[in-house]
Amino acid sequence: MATYFEDYQVGLVERFGHYAVTRDEVLRFATAFDPQPFHLDDQAAAGTHFGRLAASGWHTCSMTMRMMVDHWQEQGMQSLGSPGVDNLLWLKPVYPGDTLSVQAEWLELRASRSRPTMGIARVRHTTFNQHEEPVARFEGLVMLDRRP
Amino acid sequence: MATYFEDYQVGLVERFGHYAVTRDEVLRFATAFDPQPFHLDDQAAAGTHFGRLAASGWHTCSMTMRMMVDHWQEQGMQSLGSPGVDNLLWLKPVYPGDTLSVQAEWLELRASRSRPTMGIARVRHTTFNQHEEPVARFEGLVMLDRRP
Repeated sequence: MATYFEDYQVGLVERFGHYAVTRDEVLRFATAFDPQPFHLDDQAAAGTHFGRLAASGWHTCSMTMRMMVDHWQEQGMQSLGSPGVDNLLWLKPVYPGDTLSVQAEWLELRASRSRPTMGIARVRHTTFNQHEEPVARFEGLVMLDRRP
Repeated sequence: MATYFEDYQVGLVERFGHYAVTRDEVLRFATAFDPQPFHLDDQAAAGTHFGRLAASGWHTCSMTMRMMVDHWQEQGMQSLGSPGVDNLLWLKPVYPGDTLSVQAEWLELRASRSRPTMGIARVRHTTFNQHEEPVARFEGLVMLDRRP
């Protein structure tokens, strides 16, 4: 089954994903991309507002993206990529042991002026932890095929 | 040497970083976090506007972050973390074989109302490839210690 631009409506709210945050992955991501002390070490994090070892914000975005892509592929939705993201907020620390999920709210849908076979959606993604606390949020632009 | 909030000025422009984008890392990142066909396979990417295997946008942000953290640590600047990012744009595909660097423009500096030992900076980061083409851009908020 394929899902196209025409299959989405402004106001649609979806909830999906289940991502277990592991200490190993938090350390591996931070070592590669964000080697700040509070992403590498419990003791260094203890003196900061993180309190203990916390995931890089870019890691949180990346885990969120994985849940988004899995969800799109389940739906048969093929993104053509994204020109960007607005209002990216890291609202609360993400800790090893947390389990994340995503809420997607379809805010805007418009046809592309330059490419008539394409539509562009603005979708607000909020990432929640297992306590239903929002930990991150961003408005992503997603380019989608129109129904042939 | 330590660098504090007071050591930065609005208008400061910095240039730093040298990140070699490898095919292995592009595939590893995409497999973990963004398994869309154009981030996994040259043939699948050939039919898209990417043209060939291209890095996930979140991978580009993560590579940029690594250059930022390395630069901060060279300067003795310790970030206290970030509440978020505005206007994140993925301007051009990033390909295996590219070499990335960063320009940081200090746009705004303000004392924190809630935490008098802290300042907040808004810094526009632009990531360039080896052809001096901007490939990504975002305005990051960075929380910094004030001089004791």
